[in-house]
Amino acid sequence: MKLATLRTSDGFRTVRIEEGGYVDIGPGDVGDLLTRVDWQAVAARADGPVSEAAPSLLAPVVPRPGKIVCVGLNYRTHITEMGRDLPDHPTLFAKFPETLIGPYDHLALPPESDAADWEAELAVVVGRSVRRADRATAEAAIAGYTILNDVSLRDWQFRTKEWLQGKTWESTTPLGPCLVTPDELAPDAEISCTIDDEVVQKSTIGDLLFDAADLVAYVSTIVTLNPGDLIATGTTGGVGHARKPPRYLRPGQTMVTRIEGIGELVNPVRQEPLS
Amino acid sequence: MKLATLRTSDGFRTVRIEEGGYVDIGPGDVGDLLTRVDWQAVAARADGPVSEAAPSLLAPVVPRPGKIVCVGLNYRTHITEMGRDLPDHPTLFAKFPETLIGPYDHLALPPESDAADWEAELAVVVGRSVRRADRATAEAAIAGYTILNDVSLRDWQFRTKEWLQGKTWESTTPLGPCLVTPDELAPDAEISCTIDDEVVQKSTIGDLLFDAADLVAYVSTIVTLNPGDLIATGTTGGVGHARKPPRYLRPGQTMVTRIEGIGELVNPVRQEPLS
Repeated sequence: MKLATLRTSDGFRTVRIEEGGYVDIGPGDVGDLLTRVDWQAVAARADGPVSEAAPSLLAPVVPRPGKIVCVGLNYRTHITEMGRDLPDHPTLFAKFPETLIGPYDHLALPPESDAADWEAELAVVVGRSVRRADRATAEAAIAGYTILNDVSLRDWQFRTKEWLQGKTWESTTPLGPCLVTPDELAPDAEISCTIDDEVVQKSTIGDLLFDAADLVAYVSTIVTLNPGDLIATGTTGGVGHARKPPRYLRPGQTMVTRIEGIGELVNPVRQEPLS
Repeated sequence: MKLATLRTSDGFRTVRIEEGGYVDIGPGDVGDLLTRVDWQAVAARADGPVSEAAPSLLAPVVPRPGKIVCVGLNYRTHITEMGRDLPDHPTLFAKFPETLIGPYDHLALPPESDAADWEAELAVVVGRSVRRADRATAEAAIAGYTILNDVSLRDWQFRTKEWLQGKTWESTTPLGPCLVTPDELAPDAEISCTIDDEVVQKSTIGDLLFDAADLVAYVSTIVTLNPGDLIATGTTGGVGHARKPPRYLRPGQTMVTRIEGIGELVNPVRQEPLS
Protein backbone atom coordinates (compact mmCIF):
# COMPACT_ATOMS: atom_id res chain seq x y z
CA MET A 1 0.00 0.00 0.00
CA LYS A 2 1.19 3.51 -0.86
CA LEU A 3 -0.11 6.58 0.97
CA ALA A 4 0.43 10.26 0.28
CA THR A 5 -0.55 13.67 1.66
CA LEU A 6 -2.26 16.11 -0.71
CA ARG A 7 -2.55 19.85 -0.28
CA THR A 8 -6.10 21.11 -0.82
CA SER A 9 -7.77 24.46 -0.27
CA ASP A 10 -9.25 22.95 2.90
CA GLY A 11 -5.94 21.67 4.27
CA PHE A 12 -4.27 18.29 3.94
CA ARG A 13 -6.01 15.09 2.85
CA THR A 14 -4.61 11.60 3.01
CA VAL A 15 -4.87 9.45 -0.11
CA ARG A 16 -4.03 5.94 -1.23
CA ILE A 17 -2.12 5.74 -4.48
CA GLU A 18 -3.68 3.48 -7.10
CA GLU A 19 -3.07 2.91 -10.78
CA GLY A 20 -4.15 6.14 -12.45
CA GLY A 21 -4.50 8.36 -9.41
CA TYR A 22 -5.51 8.75 -5.79
CA VAL A 23 -8.30 7.36 -3.62
CA ASP A 24 -9.30 9.77 -0.85
CA ILE A 25 -8.97 8.40 2.70
CA GLY A 26 -10.02 11.52 4.57
CA PRO A 27 -8.94 14.87 6.04
CA GLY A 28 -5.57 15.27 7.71
CA ASP A 29 -2.10 14.17 6.63
CA VAL A 30 -0.41 10.77 6.75
CA GLY A 31 1.05 11.65 10.15
CA ASP A 32 -2.45 12.20 11.52
CA LEU A 33 -3.63 8.90 10.04
CA LEU A 34 -0.77 7.04 11.73
CA THR A 35 -1.98 8.12 15.17
CA ARG A 36 -4.95 5.75 14.69
CA VAL A 37 -4.22 2.19 15.81
CA ASP A 38 -6.36 0.94 12.92
CA TRP A 39 -4.65 3.13 10.31
CA GLN A 40 -3.89 0.24 7.97
CA ALA A 41 -7.51 -0.94 7.89
CA VAL A 42 -8.79 2.62 7.46
CA ALA A 43 -6.39 3.22 4.58
CA ALA A 44 -7.12 -0.13 2.90
CA ARG A 45 -10.90 0.10 2.98
CA ALA A 46 -11.27 3.55 1.38
CA ASP A 47 -13.09 2.81 -1.88
CA GLY A 48 -14.07 6.13 -3.45
CA PRO A 49 -13.29 7.11 -7.03
CA VAL A 50 -9.74 7.29 -8.33
CA SER A 51 -8.91 10.89 -9.16
CA GLU A 52 -5.88 12.69 -10.48
CA ALA A 53 -3.92 15.51 -8.88
CA ALA A 54 -1.04 17.66 -10.07
CA PRO A 55 2.33 16.55 -8.64
CA SER A 56 2.72 20.01 -7.10
CA LEU A 57 -0.19 19.16 -4.76
CA LEU A 58 1.87 16.46 -3.05
CA ALA A 59 2.99 17.64 0.39
CA PRO A 60 5.85 16.21 2.43
CA VAL A 61 4.24 12.83 3.25
CA VAL A 62 4.42 13.67 6.98
CA PRO A 63 4.39 17.48 6.98
CA ARG A 64 4.91 17.98 10.74
CA PRO A 65 6.72 15.02 12.29
CA GLY A 66 7.23 15.28 16.04
CA LYS A 67 10.86 14.30 15.55
CA ILE A 68 13.23 14.00 12.61
CA VAL A 69 16.25 11.94 13.63
CA CYS A 70 19.02 11.73 11.04
CA VAL A 71 21.87 9.27 10.81
CA GLY A 72 25.42 10.03 9.68
CA LEU A 73 27.62 7.71 7.60
CA ASN A 74 25.70 4.45 7.35
CA TYR A 75 26.55 2.81 4.00
CA ARG A 76 29.06 0.04 4.56
CA THR A 77 30.78 0.27 1.16
CA HIS A 78 31.08 4.03 1.40
CA ILE A 79 32.57 3.92 4.91
CA THR A 80 35.08 1.27 3.84
CA GLU A 81 36.06 3.09 0.61
CA MET A 82 36.83 6.17 2.67
CA GLY A 83 39.26 4.10 4.72
CA ARG A 84 37.28 4.35 7.92
CA ASP A 85 36.43 1.59 10.36
CA LEU A 86 32.79 0.60 10.69
CA PRO A 87 31.40 2.47 13.71
CA ASP A 88 29.95 0.70 16.76
CA HIS A 89 27.12 3.20 17.10
CA PRO A 90 25.11 5.29 14.65
CA THR A 91 25.86 9.02 14.53
CA LEU A 92 22.60 10.89 15.21
CA PHE A 93 21.60 14.48 14.61
CA ALA A 94 18.30 16.32 14.18
CA LYS A 95 16.31 18.38 11.74
CA PHE A 96 13.30 20.54 12.56
CA PRO A 97 10.03 20.13 10.63
CA GLU A 98 10.28 23.62 9.06
CA THR A 99 13.02 22.23 6.81
CA LEU A 100 10.64 19.91 4.90
CA ILE A 101 9.32 20.55 1.38
CA GLY A 102 7.15 18.42 -0.91
CA PRO A 103 8.43 15.90 -3.44
CA TYR A 104 7.95 18.22 -6.44
CA ASP A 105 8.55 21.57 -4.72
CA HIS A 106 11.25 23.99 -5.76
CA LEU A 107 14.40 23.73 -3.69
CA ALA A 108 15.28 27.37 -2.97
CA LEU A 109 18.97 27.93 -2.19
CA PRO A 110 19.36 30.51 0.57
CA PRO A 111 21.55 33.49 -0.35
CA GLU A 112 23.56 32.99 2.86
CA SER A 113 25.16 29.79 1.57
CA ASP A 114 27.20 28.85 -1.45
CA ALA A 115 27.52 25.14 -0.68
CA ALA A 116 24.21 23.24 -0.83
CA ASP A 117 24.85 19.53 -1.33
CA TRP A 118 22.69 16.44 -1.98
CA GLU A 119 22.26 13.36 0.26
CA ALA A 120 19.76 10.76 -1.01
CA GLU A 121 18.32 8.81 1.92
CA LEU A 122 15.79 6.15 2.82
CA ALA A 123 13.55 7.42 5.63
CA VAL A 124 11.70 5.25 8.12
CA VAL A 125 8.22 6.39 9.20
CA VAL A 126 7.24 5.28 12.69
CA GLY A 127 3.73 3.83 13.09
CA ARG A 128 3.32 3.31 16.81
CA SER A 129 4.80 4.58 20.08
CA VAL A 130 7.79 2.58 21.26
CA ARG A 131 10.43 2.94 23.92
CA ARG A 132 13.37 0.57 24.43
CA ALA A 133 12.14 -1.61 21.60
CA ASP A 134 13.89 -4.89 20.90
CA ARG A 135 14.44 -5.74 17.24
CA ALA A 136 11.08 -7.47 16.76
CA THR A 137 9.14 -4.64 18.43
CA ALA A 138 11.12 -2.11 16.42
CA GLU A 139 10.29 -3.86 13.18
CA ALA A 140 6.60 -3.97 14.07
CA ALA A 141 6.66 -0.24 14.86
CA ILE A 142 7.70 0.70 11.32
CA ALA A 143 4.67 2.00 9.39
CA GLY A 144 6.66 2.21 6.20
CA TYR A 145 9.31 3.99 4.20
CA THR A 146 9.73 7.15 2.19
CA ILE A 147 12.50 9.16 0.51
CA LEU A 148 14.30 12.15 2.01
CA ASN A 149 17.08 14.23 0.51
CA ASP A 150 19.14 15.51 3.43
CA VAL A 151 20.24 18.64 1.57
CA SER A 152 23.13 20.08 3.56
CA LEU A 153 24.65 23.54 3.50
CA ARG A 154 28.25 22.45 3.94
CA ASP A 155 29.60 25.92 4.76
CA TRP A 156 27.19 26.20 7.70
CA GLN A 157 27.43 22.50 8.62
CA PHE A 158 31.17 22.83 9.22
CA ARG A 159 31.18 26.25 10.90
CA THR A 160 31.27 24.29 14.18
CA LYS A 161 31.61 20.64 15.11
CA GLU A 162 27.86 20.10 15.47
CA TRP A 163 26.11 19.74 12.11
CA LEU A 164 22.61 21.03 12.98
CA GLN A 165 23.04 24.52 11.52
CA GLY A 166 23.83 23.13 8.07
CA LYS A 167 21.08 20.54 8.17
CA THR A 168 17.89 22.31 9.16
CA TRP A 169 17.57 25.31 6.84
CA GLU A 170 14.01 26.35 6.17
CA SER A 171 12.39 24.54 3.22
CA THR A 172 15.47 22.67 1.99
CA THR A 173 14.65 18.99 2.71
CA PRO A 174 12.42 17.22 0.16
CA LEU A 175 10.34 14.37 1.62
CA GLY A 176 8.00 11.91 -0.12
CA PRO A 177 6.44 11.27 -2.53
CA CYS A 178 4.60 8.65 -0.49
CA LEU A 179 4.82 6.20 2.38
CA VAL A 180 5.12 2.60 1.21
CA THR A 181 4.30 -0.17 3.66
CA PRO A 182 7.24 -2.49 4.40
CA ASP A 183 5.98 -5.23 2.05
CA GLU A 184 6.51 -2.87 -0.92
CA LEU A 185 10.23 -2.31 -0.36
CA ALA A 186 12.79 -4.88 -1.55
CA PRO A 187 15.73 -5.41 0.85
CA ASP A 188 18.16 -4.48 -1.93
CA ALA A 189 16.16 -1.64 -3.50
CA GLU A 190 18.29 0.77 -5.51
CA ILE A 191 18.73 4.32 -4.20
CA SER A 192 20.09 7.13 -6.35
CA CYS A 193 20.45 10.86 -6.76
CA THR A 194 20.62 12.48 -10.19
CA ILE A 195 21.52 16.10 -10.93
CA ASP A 196 20.09 16.96 -14.35
CA ASP A 197 21.07 13.86 -16.32
CA GLU A 198 24.07 12.84 -14.25
CA VAL A 199 23.81 10.08 -11.66
CA VAL A 200 25.79 11.41 -8.68
CA GLN A 201 24.85 8.79 -6.06
CA LYS A 202 23.86 5.16 -6.55
CA SER A 203 23.71 2.30 -4.11
CA THR A 204 21.30 -0.21 -2.61
CA ILE A 205 19.63 -0.01 0.76
CA GLY A 206 20.98 -3.52 1.39
CA ASP A 207 24.32 -1.81 2.06
CA LEU A 208 23.03 -0.02 5.19
CA LEU A 209 25.20 -0.79 8.21
CA PHE A 210 22.44 -0.03 10.74
CA ASP A 211 19.16 -1.02 9.12
CA ALA A 212 15.70 0.39 9.82
CA ALA A 213 14.91 -1.94 12.74
CA ASP A 214 18.37 -1.36 14.27
CA LEU A 215 17.80 2.38 14.16
CA VAL A 216 14.27 2.29 15.59
CA ALA A 217 15.56 0.10 18.44
CA TYR A 218 18.58 2.35 19.05
CA VAL A 219 16.73 5.68 18.98
CA SER A 220 13.88 4.28 21.08
CA THR A 221 16.39 3.40 23.80
CA ILE A 222 17.01 7.13 24.15
CA VAL A 223 13.56 8.60 23.60
CA THR A 224 10.01 7.44 22.82
CA LEU A 225 9.33 7.26 19.10
CA ASN A 226 5.79 8.22 18.16
CA PRO A 227 3.58 7.80 15.08
CA GLY A 228 4.81 10.03 12.26
CA ASP A 229 8.33 10.41 13.63
CA LEU A 230 10.99 10.04 10.95
CA ILE A 231 14.42 8.46 10.93
CA ALA A 232 16.55 9.40 7.91
CA THR A 233 18.97 6.49 7.56
CA GLY A 234 22.03 8.24 6.13
CA THR A 235 23.53 8.61 2.66
CA THR A 236 26.02 6.80 0.46
CA GLY A 237 29.08 8.01 -1.48
CA GLY A 238 28.96 10.61 -4.24
CA VAL A 239 28.10 13.78 -2.34
CA GLY A 240 29.36 16.99 -3.90
CA HIS A 241 31.44 18.14 -0.93
CA ALA A 242 33.74 15.09 -1.14
CA ARG A 243 34.53 15.62 -4.83
CA LYS A 244 37.70 17.25 -6.07
CA PRO A 245 36.98 20.02 -6.69
CA PRO A 246 33.81 20.11 -4.56
CA ARG A 247 30.50 20.52 -6.39
CA TYR A 248 27.31 22.08 -5.07
CA LEU A 249 23.75 22.61 -6.25
CA ARG A 250 23.24 25.47 -8.68
CA PRO A 251 20.08 27.37 -9.69
CA GLY A 252 18.53 25.90 -12.85
CA GLN A 253 19.49 22.30 -12.03
CA THR A 254 16.95 19.59 -11.19
CA MET A 255 17.70 17.19 -8.36
CA VAL A 256 16.01 13.79 -8.63
CA THR A 257 16.15 11.37 -5.69
CA ARG A 258 14.90 7.83 -6.35
CA ILE A 259 14.34 4.66 -4.39
CA GLU A 260 13.09 1.64 -6.30
CA GLY A 261 9.64 0.66 -5.03
CA ILE A 262 8.91 4.06 -3.47
CA GLY A 263 9.21 6.55 -6.34
CA GLU A 264 11.07 9.79 -6.76
CA LEU A 265 11.53 13.35 -5.56
CA VAL A 266 11.93 15.84 -8.42
CA ASN A 267 13.09 19.22 -7.14
CA PRO A 268 14.02 22.09 -9.45
CA VAL A 269 16.73 24.17 -7.84
CA ARG A 270 16.46 27.92 -7.73
CA GLN A 271 17.93 30.87 -5.90
CA GLU A 272 15.89 32.12 -2.97
CA PRO A 273 15.56 35.89 -2.79
CA LEU A 274 16.44 37.36 0.59
CA SER A 275 13.13 37.47 2.47
CA MET B 1 5.51 39.49 34.95
CA LYS B 2 6.07 35.81 35.74
CA LEU B 3 4.03 33.07 34.06
CA ALA B 4 3.91 29.35 34.73
CA THR B 5 2.16 26.21 33.48
CA LEU B 6 0.24 24.13 36.02
CA ARG B 7 -0.80 20.51 35.64
CA THR B 8 -4.47 19.97 36.52
CA SER B 9 -6.80 17.01 36.15
CA ASP B 10 -8.26 18.79 33.11
CA GLY B 11 -4.90 19.44 31.44
CA PHE B 12 -2.58 22.42 31.60
CA ARG B 13 -3.56 25.87 32.82
CA THR B 14 -1.53 29.05 32.50
CA VAL B 15 -1.08 31.17 35.60
CA ARG B 16 0.53 34.44 36.60
CA ILE B 17 2.73 34.24 39.66
CA GLU B 18 1.90 36.73 42.41
CA GLU B 19 2.93 37.15 46.02
CA GLY B 20 1.41 34.15 47.80
CA GLY B 21 0.36 32.06 44.82
CA TYR B 22 -1.05 31.93 41.33
CA VAL B 23 -3.71 33.84 39.40
CA ASP B 24 -5.39 31.71 36.76
CA ILE B 25 -5.13 33.02 33.18
CA GLY B 26 -6.94 30.17 31.44
CA PRO B 27 -6.67 26.71 29.91
CA GLY B 28 -3.60 25.67 27.94
CA ASP B 29 0.10 26.07 28.67
CA VAL B 30 2.39 29.09 28.37
CA GLY B 31 3.33 27.96 24.84
CA ASP B 32 -0.33 28.13 23.83
CA LEU B 33 -0.70 31.58 25.38
CA LEU B 34 2.30 32.86 23.41
CA THR B 35 0.59 32.07 20.10
CA ARG B 36 -1.81 34.96 20.85
CA VAL B 37 -0.51 38.32 19.64
CA ASP B 38 -2.10 39.94 22.71
CA TRP B 39 -0.60 37.43 25.19
CA GLN B 40 0.92 40.10 27.40
CA ALA B 41 -2.38 41.95 27.80
CA VAL B 42 -4.29 38.70 28.38
CA ALA B 43 -1.78 37.63 31.03
CA ALA B 44 -1.69 41.02 32.73
CA ARG B 45 -5.43 41.55 33.01
CA ALA B 46 -6.33 38.22 34.68
CA ASP B 47 -7.67 39.28 38.08
CA GLY B 48 -9.11 36.17 39.75
CA PRO B 49 -8.23 35.03 43.27
CA VAL B 50 -4.66 34.15 44.23
CA SER B 51 -4.48 30.43 45.00
CA GLU B 52 -1.74 28.07 46.06
CA ALA B 53 -0.51 24.94 44.30
CA ALA B 54 1.99 22.26 45.23
CA PRO B 55 5.37 22.72 43.49
CA SER B 56 4.93 19.26 41.95
CA LEU B 57 2.05 20.67 39.88
CA LEU B 58 4.42 22.95 37.97
CA ALA B 59 4.96 21.60 34.44
CA PRO B 60 7.85 22.50 32.13
CA VAL B 61 6.86 26.11 31.43
CA VAL B 62 6.52 25.30 27.72
CA PRO B 63 5.76 21.57 27.75
CA ARG B 64 5.85 21.00 23.96
CA PRO B 65 8.02 23.58 22.23
CA GLY B 66 8.12 23.25 18.44
CA LYS B 67 11.91 23.51 18.58
CA ILE B 68 14.55 23.33 21.28
CA VAL B 69 17.80 24.76 19.97
CA CYS B 70 20.78 24.42 22.29
CA VAL B 71 24.08 26.26 22.24
CA GLY B 72 27.49 24.80 23.04
CA LEU B 73 30.27 26.65 24.89
CA ASN B 74 29.07 30.22 25.29
CA TYR B 75 30.52 31.62 28.54
CA ARG B 76 33.45 33.88 27.73
CA THR B 77 35.41 33.28 30.95
CA HIS B 78 34.96 29.55 30.71
CA ILE B 79 36.13 29.40 27.07
CA THR B 80 39.17 31.50 27.90
CA GLU B 81 40.10 29.53 31.04
CA MET B 82 40.08 26.37 28.94
CA GLY B 83 42.66 27.96 26.65
CA ARG B 84 40.37 28.12 23.65
CA ASP B 85 39.83 31.00 21.27
CA LEU B 86 36.43 32.68 21.29
CA PRO B 87 34.43 31.13 18.42
CA ASP B 88 33.08 33.17 15.50
CA HIS B 89 29.78 31.26 15.44
CA PRO B 90 27.65 29.58 18.08
CA THR B 91 27.67 25.79 18.14
CA LEU B 92 24.07 24.59 17.80
CA PHE B 93 22.45 21.24 18.52
CA ALA B 94 18.90 20.06 19.27
CA LYS B 95 16.79 18.41 21.91
CA PHE B 96 13.36 16.88 21.38
CA PRO B 97 10.41 17.92 23.62
CA GLU B 98 10.14 14.43 25.18
CA THR B 99 13.29 15.24 27.16
CA LEU B 100 11.58 17.95 29.26
CA ILE B 101 10.50 17.55 32.89
CA GLY B 102 9.00 20.03 35.34
CA PRO B 103 10.99 22.23 37.72
CA TYR B 104 10.33 20.02 40.78
CA ASP B 105 10.11 16.63 39.06
CA HIS B 106 12.37 13.72 39.86
CA LEU B 107 15.31 13.38 37.50
CA ALA B 108 15.40 9.66 36.75
CA LEU B 109 18.82 8.40 35.63
CA PRO B 110 18.45 5.81 32.85
CA PRO B 111 20.09 2.46 33.59
CA GLU B 112 21.86 2.58 30.21
CA SER B 113 24.17 5.41 31.33
CA ASP B 114 26.61 5.92 34.14
CA ALA B 115 27.58 9.50 33.32
CA ALA B 116 24.72 12.00 33.73
CA ASP B 117 26.13 15.50 34.14
CA TRP B 118 24.69 18.95 34.95
CA GLU B 119 24.64 22.07 32.75
CA ALA B 120 22.83 25.10 34.22
CA GLU B 121 21.52 27.32 31.41
CA LEU B 122 19.49 30.42 30.72
CA ALA B 123 16.78 29.63 28.15
CA VAL B 124 15.17 32.14 25.83
CA VAL B 125 11.45 31.72 25.09
CA VAL B 126 10.39 33.03 21.69
CA GLY B 127 7.20 35.13 21.61
CA ARG B 128 6.55 35.76 17.93
CA SER B 129 7.44 34.25 14.55
CA VAL B 130 10.65 35.66 13.09
CA ARG B 131 12.93 34.81 10.18
CA ARG B 132 16.20 36.56 9.37
CA ALA B 133 15.69 38.91 12.30
CA ASP B 134 18.11 41.78 12.81
CA ARG B 135 19.14 42.48 16.38
CA ALA B 136 16.25 44.84 17.16
CA THR B 137 13.65 42.45 15.70
CA ALA B 138 15.26 39.56 17.54
CA GLU B 139 15.11 41.41 20.83
CA ALA B 140 11.42 42.24 20.29
CA ALA B 141 10.69 38.57 19.53
CA ILE B 142 11.84 37.43 22.97
CA ALA B 143 8.82 36.72 25.19
CA GLY B 144 11.02 36.10 28.18
CA TYR B 145 13.43 33.81 29.95
CA THR B 146 13.42 30.61 31.92
CA ILE B 147 15.91 28.09 33.37
CA LEU B 148 16.94 24.82 31.72
CA ASN B 149 19.40 22.24 32.98
CA ASP B 150 20.87 20.61 29.89
CA VAL B 151 21.53 17.31 31.68
CA SER B 152 23.89 15.35 29.44
CA LEU B 153 24.71 11.66 29.40
CA ARG B 154 28.40 12.03 28.61
CA ASP B 155 28.95 8.37 27.70
CA TRP B 156 26.28 8.60 24.98
CA GLN B 157 27.15 12.18 24.02
CA PHE B 158 30.69 11.15 23.09
CA ARG B 159 29.87 7.80 21.43
CA THR B 160 30.03 9.74 18.15
CA LYS B 161 31.00 13.28 17.17
CA GLU B 162 27.40 14.52 17.14
CA TRP B 163 26.06 15.20 20.64
CA LEU B 164 22.31 14.61 20.12
CA GLN B 165 22.20 11.10 21.56
CA GLY B 166 23.57 12.25 24.91
CA LYS B 167 21.37 15.33 25.04
CA THR B 168 17.81 14.22 24.37
CA TRP B 169 17.12 11.33 26.74
CA GLU B 170 13.52 10.98 27.75
CA SER B 171 12.56 13.06 30.80
CA THR B 172 16.04 14.28 31.73
CA THR B 173 15.90 18.05 31.05
CA PRO B 174 14.28 20.20 33.79
CA LEU B 175 12.69 23.42 32.50
CA GLY B 176 11.03 26.23 34.42
CA PRO B 177 9.85 27.17 36.97
CA CYS B 178 8.37 30.11 35.07
CA LEU B 179 8.80 32.50 32.20
CA VAL B 180 9.89 35.96 33.30
CA THR B 181 9.41 38.86 30.91
CA PRO B 182 12.66 40.58 29.89
CA ASP B 183 12.18 43.49 32.32
CA GLU B 184 12.52 41.04 35.26
CA LEU B 185 16.00 39.77 34.36
CA ALA B 186 19.09 41.78 35.27
CA PRO B 187 21.85 41.76 32.61
CA ASP B 188 24.29 40.36 35.16
CA ALA B 189 21.94 37.93 36.94
CA GLU B 190 23.74 35.14 38.76
CA ILE B 191 23.36 31.59 37.44
CA SER B 192 24.35 28.55 39.47
CA CYS B 193 24.01 24.81 39.89
CA THR B 194 24.17 23.16 43.30
CA ILE B 195 24.42 19.42 43.97
CA ASP B 196 23.18 18.82 47.53
CA ASP B 197 24.92 21.64 49.37
CA GLU B 198 27.86 22.09 47.02
CA VAL B 199 27.89 24.88 44.44
CA VAL B 200 29.30 23.22 41.31
CA GLN B 201 28.64 26.00 38.77
CA LYS B 202 28.43 29.75 39.33
CA SER B 203 28.61 32.61 36.88
CA THR B 204 26.61 35.55 35.58
CA ILE B 205 24.61 35.71 32.38
CA GLY B 206 26.54 38.89 31.58
CA ASP B 207 29.43 36.58 30.63
CA LEU B 208 27.53 35.11 27.66
CA LEU B 209 29.52 35.47 24.44
CA PHE B 210 26.44 35.28 22.18
CA ASP B 211 23.57 36.88 24.08
CA ALA B 212 19.87 36.16 23.71
CA ALA B 213 19.28 38.62 20.87
CA ASP B 214 22.40 37.41 19.02
CA LEU B 215 21.12 33.84 19.23
CA VAL B 216 17.56 34.63 18.13
CA ALA B 217 18.98 36.55 15.14
CA TYR B 218 21.43 33.75 14.27
CA VAL B 219 18.99 30.85 14.54
CA SER B 220 16.28 32.79 12.70
CA THR B 221 18.65 33.20 9.76
CA ILE B 222 18.49 29.42 9.38
CA VAL B 223 14.90 28.64 10.27
CA THR B 224 11.75 30.46 11.36
CA LEU B 225 11.44 30.75 15.13
CA ASN B 226 7.88 30.47 16.41
CA PRO B 227 6.10 31.31 19.68
CA GLY B 228 7.12 28.83 22.39
CA ASP B 229 10.37 27.80 20.70
CA LEU B 230 13.29 27.63 23.12
CA ILE B 231 16.94 28.50 22.80
CA ALA B 232 19.12 27.15 25.62
CA THR B 233 22.08 29.51 25.71
CA GLY B 234 24.87 27.20 26.90
CA THR B 235 26.56 26.51 30.19
CA THR B 236 29.56 27.77 32.15
CA GLY B 237 32.49 26.00 33.83
CA GLY B 238 32.13 23.43 36.59
CA VAL B 239 30.49 20.52 34.80
CA GLY B 240 31.26 17.09 36.26
CA HIS B 241 32.80 15.60 33.13
CA ALA B 242 35.65 18.14 33.09
CA ARG B 243 36.65 17.43 36.70
CA LYS B 244 39.56 15.21 37.68
CA PRO B 245 38.37 12.63 38.38
CA PRO B 246 35.05 13.17 36.55
CA ARG B 247 31.91 13.39 38.67
CA TYR B 248 28.38 12.49 37.67
CA LEU B 249 24.91 12.66 39.18
CA ARG B 250 24.07 9.91 41.68
CA PRO B 251 20.72 8.67 42.99
CA GLY B 252 19.77 10.38 46.24
CA GLN B 253 21.33 13.72 45.33
CA THR B 254 19.31 16.88 44.71
CA MET B 255 20.24 19.11 41.79
CA VAL B 256 19.27 22.78 42.19
CA THR B 257 19.62 25.15 39.23
CA ARG B 258 19.14 28.85 39.96
CA ILE B 259 19.02 32.10 38.04
CA GLU B 260 18.56 35.28 40.02
CA GLY B 261 15.26 36.93 39.08
CA ILE B 262 13.76 33.76 37.63
CA GLY B 263 13.83 31.23 40.47
CA GLU B 264 15.06 27.67 40.74
CA LEU B 265 14.70 24.11 39.52
CA VAL B 266 14.86 21.56 42.37
CA ASN B 267 15.23 18.03 41.01
CA PRO B 268 15.79 15.04 43.27
CA VAL B 269 17.89 12.45 41.43
CA ARG B 270 16.88 8.84 41.41
CA GLN B 271 17.58 5.69 39.45
CA GLU B 272 15.06 4.88 36.74
CA PRO B 273 13.95 1.26 36.62
CA LEU B 274 14.25 -0.33 33.17
CA SER B 275 10.83 0.25 31.57
